[in-house]
Amino acid sequence: MTAVRVQTREGEYPVLVEVGVLADLPGLLSEHAPARRYAFISDDNVASLHGHPSMEAVRAAGLDASLFTFPAGEASKTRKSWSILTDELLEAGFGRDTCVVAVGGGVTTDLAGFVAATFLRGVPVVQVPTSYLAMIDASVGGKTGVDVAAGKNLVGAFHAPRLVVADPEVVRTLPKGERAQGLVEALKHGAILDAAYFERLRSGLDALLAAEPLAAEEAVLRSVEIKADVVSQDEREGGFRQVLNFGHTLGHALEAASQYGLGHGSAVAFGMVLEAEVGERLGVTQAGTSAVLAAVLACLVDLGPLPLDAEATLRFLRADKKARAGRPRVVLLRTLGEVDPGRGWSHEVGEDLLAEVLSQGTARGVSP
Amino acid sequence: MTAVRVQTREGEYPVLVEVGVLADLPGLLSEHAPARRYAFISDDNVASLHGHPSMEAVRAAGLDASLFTFPAGEASKTRKSWSILTDELLEAGFGRDTCVVAVGGGVTTDLAGFVAATFLRGVPVVQVPTSYLAMIDASVGGKTGVDVAAGKNLVGAFHAPRLVVADPEVVRTLPKGERAQGLVEALKHGAILDAAYFERLRSGLDALLAAEPLAAEEAVLRSVEIKADVVSQDEREGGFRQVLNFGHTLGHALEAASQYGLGHGSAVAFGMVLEAEVGERLGVTQAGTSAVLAAVLACLVDLGPLPLDAEATLRFLRADKKARAGRPRVVLLRTLGEVDPGRGWSHEVGEDLLAEVLSQGTARGVSP
Repeated sequence: MTAVRVQTREGEYPVLVEVGVLADLPGLLSEHAPARRYAFISDDNVASLHGHPSMEAVRAAGLDASLFTFPAGEASKTRKSWSILTDELLEAGFGRDTCVVAVGGGVTTDLAGFVAATFLRGVPVVQVPTSYLAMIDASVGGKTGVDVAAGKNLVGAFHAPRLVVADPEVVRTLPKGERAQGLVEALKHGAILDAAYFERLRSGLDALLAAEPLAAEEAVLRSVEIKADVVSQDEREGGFRQVLNFGHTLGHALEAASQYGLGHGSAVAFGMVLEAEVGERLGVTQAGTSAVLAAVLACLVDLGPLPLDAEATLRFLRADKKARAGRPRVVLLRTLGEVDPGRGWSHEVGEDLLAEVLSQGTARGVSP
Repeated sequence: MTAVRVQTREGEYPVLVEVGVLADLPGLLSEHAPARRYAFISDDNVASLHGHPSMEAVRAAGLDASLFTFPAGEASKTRKSWSILTDELLEAGFGRDTCVVAVGGGVTTDLAGFVAATFLRGVPVVQVPTSYLAMIDASVGGKTGVDVAAGKNLVGAFHAPRLVVADPEVVRTLPKGERAQGLVEALKHGAILDAAYFERLRSGLDALLAAEPLAAEEAVLRSVEIKADVVSQDEREGGFRQVLNFGHTLGHALEAASQYGLGHGSAVAFGMVLEAEVGERLGVTQAGTSAVLAAVLACLVDLGPLPLDAEATLRFLRADKKARAGRPRVVLLRTLGEVDPGRGWSHEVGEDLLAEVLSQGTARGVSP
């Protein structure tokens, strides 16, 4: 079994990446996260595909397990869903000897992770990501949380999982559009830290979009390695972890301004192209980088004009978690595969420049 | 300045206990918790007494500070208040470079601590407890959280403060009844770990109830030392920290069954007397201990009959956070000043015995 180990200040945990590993879940739970009761959490789409079957397999192995569900979609990543799930667990008599098992995409891993982080002041969680996005991004690093009116992920906690079980075969059940959304984050990993990986992704995009298991396994594994390496160096985002935020300062603002109508991958794709353009205009990023990014990202998501209010987007930008003194910070590439260190791995960028790049980008789109 | 140092896995923090120390708050914040903006949180009673004046003093020292308030009372210790405060901070543009300053009693330190623990996945908090209860109990140990319908403190997080500033002079502004509520926890500290301290408290109760500054300072300091020592040994309540739970298994259930009409101190006083009686019946606790506790606690709170439904109390008992497999656990004294180690510093006690002691205790009261 291929395990990537992630360091946190609470110890380390393994991320298992292997085609078919989900079948081993009962034994893995007993070994890595022994508990008297397992509370599986899935959205109502993933519940029938993976949540319920996994929970039943765990029961068949003699463990005590129950499944709790919530309506699928980013609109469920709220304090309300978190409250309802928490109350359902309490109502069902779950106590401190509980382990939460999150089976689903990024919304589920974030939401169920936050339930676990705050349930009786914290119980263990095992993450079973079922989308590319959740496997390569959301499930590594211990970030949990929910969205609020003021923006995405503004309420939450760091809560490292006991174990992450990523079975790339599961991606087959994911709609093709969502596979594409997730692969945007894989390209981001290449763009910030590994140019060769970026190239492999670019040449293998068709196989990855088709969810060919071995191609998927290779990409998920490399992305997990990259993210785990970064997170192990800087669990709480004081410095180097910032690099993972490439494309996300503008991406999150676009996502919020669209009221989450824009997919996370699409928003980050726009963000990567536009932040590369910002870097080029500032002379930090090698000329042409933004065009290379646009060309490959356009194979995954629609990069045409976005009908968003540029003023509203700017407001969300100022409220970004990473903003200091209300001034947005942006991760800038030097070139593909390398981030400019800046100050603390990001740059404070003037609002005029951001406003200009944003309004042009959303009006015209950033298609190659 | 007398500082007690508390160890946590995130490092250590000082608890400053001294008459008049609140006047040094601006300098202490700059030294121990530098931040671009300070978000003071108080209930609407304490706001005018201490929250607003402290915030103004911090402003006068050139720091950026704002005050956020919520309605006084345990009924405010909810996810709703937490959501409202969080949204108010976001609305006011507070970012990651924020430090929350909780000025108030236990409700405030728990609620504001939970806001800090989850705001943008966690910002620092400084605790400025203003009641005996908060000084000697709530502000040491990093527990934060809110109550839910199923019980008290069932949702929350461990979030160690950067600094605790306990000025015993402030207790003068506290209604006498609340002083008495808080001193119950001081007696608990003596009862579990320091018989000599228990005796000093007993003989000095009048001065403490009168909030004589030096008497208050001595008691707060010794209680903080005891609690800090326990918490430093066992931050996450895996073992020894359980001893602090003496009186609380039954106390929390009584508090919940009263729908929080019963004060925390009153509930814990009942809990201590009844848990000592349970210990005596089991032959674990020295005979007569319960009577000694009842005699001194009756000087602080009303120990007469409680008009509570014993069945409802038992239901809350089974839902207690420390229950394992739904079976309540109780901390039992050997004698005053010493806890019986049991298994993990608590005992699983049969529900029949608990039900009997509870129903008799609530029906007749436990007055000496």
